[in-house]
Amino acid sequence: MTAEQQARHDEVFGALARSTRRLVEAQLLTEVEDDVAREVAAEIDALTARLRKQSRSGPLGIEVGEDGHTRAHGNAVIGLRNAVAPPLHVDRTPDGKAWSRFHLGPQYEGPPGLVHGGVSALLLDQLCGEAAAAGGSPGMTGRLTLHYRRPTPLGDLSGEAWIDHVEGYKTTVKGHLKDNEGNPTVEAEGLFILPRWARELIAEREESRPDRFE
Amino acid sequence: MTAEQQARHDEVFGALARSTRRLVEAQLLTEVEDDVAREVAAEIDALTARLRKQSRSGPLGIEVGEDGHTRAHGNAVIGLRNAVAPPLHVDRTPDGKAWSRFHLGPQYEGPPGLVHGGVSALLLDQLCGEAAAAGGSPGMTGRLTLHYRRPTPLGDLSGEAWIDHVEGYKTTVKGHLKDNEGNPTVEAEGLFILPRWARELIAEREESRPDRFE
Repeated sequence: MTAEQQARHDEVFGALARSTRRLVEAQLLTEVEDDVAREVAAEIDALTARLRKQSRSGPLGIEVGEDGHTRAHGNAVIGLRNAVAPPLHVDRTPDGKAWSRFHLGPQYEGPPGLVHGGVSALLLDQLCGEAAAAGGSPGMTGRLTLHYRRPTPLGDLSGEAWIDHVEGYKTTVKGHLKDNEGNPTVEAEGLFILPRWARELIAEREESRPDRFE
Repeated sequence: MTAEQQARHDEVFGALARSTRRLVEAQLLTEVEDDVAREVAAEIDALTARLRKQSRSGPLGIEVGEDGHTRAHGNAVIGLRNAVAPPLHVDRTPDGKAWSRFHLGPQYEGPPGLVHGGVSALLLDQLCGEAAAAGGSPGMTGRLTLHYRRPTPLGDLSGEAWIDHVEGYKTTVKGHLKDNEGNPTVEAEGLFILPRWARELIAEREESRPDRFE
């Protein structure tokens, strides 16, 4: 796809996911009569059948665009096309920082009126991983520790993460979520590890770089 | 609601959520033409409007049924009515064990073909919390530590959690997810704490129990 085709694709299928997210919330909160609920379910099934007529079979994975940027449209936290994802728009800087402001609706509830503790973990895992990658030391999550300092209310929230230190292929990242008053609610510390296969790939590329033999 | 009304409500609105989950997956994987995607999005918006005509405004919270059982239909992991939740059906025993077999589709992806590390954390938080509650020492998550031992593939998975030890109002729970071959992929240790308000409520009830004054 050219950059232009990608932009149009993202506009059309991003809008489809946004509509689906609104339906996810509406069907959770609705109090319509049983007959209406049954009719709507049947109409949803018809739309699902229509979308399945042309479809990939497997998950979206990660695409690398013409511009070299990765597109993780299926990602459960940031995926533009994933209606399970809020989705988070994450800003990053090369010094290993990542942050986001976002809104969590009723579909992210755990205790009454509060964000599910595991949803906080989900978002912090993504934010910490993005900080590690932004700082040039990406990895898969090896360990993640969450400290729950106070309840996280549903609604407008923010989160940030930053590289604490790097030791070889292991990166330690810290982060937290904050409520709408700016109080940290959940703190995270993550250890991100570059897998062996990725280290070997990087080592091979380093060895074959022409400037090594000049 | 009577038990009968509850059962019919769960059947109708559970089916609506199941249809919505299938749509969430279909819209993520679809490769229909742009025009079809736009038409489907417009039809989804019309269904959303229909469901919103009669609707609660806030999140579902937790209801206590006539039978004394709690109904967490909005919960992000186990919620019958929540299309973000897989949902997990969790079995529990009074000795503080909780377990579940479940399927994770492409909407739970992180690395290509793999479950998002944060989704594993989300499910383990719920399973560990259920084990604590099943064993009679419920609490809110105070701390959660995840060790990622090997990648968790999308597809059929299982998870289990058990109380490790209880100290007053603090319960330590361990658990793990397993892949389809039974290999543990992510291990968890959680500390669950009964909040002060709940401890005070329980103390008050204990004091006012008639049998204390007999």
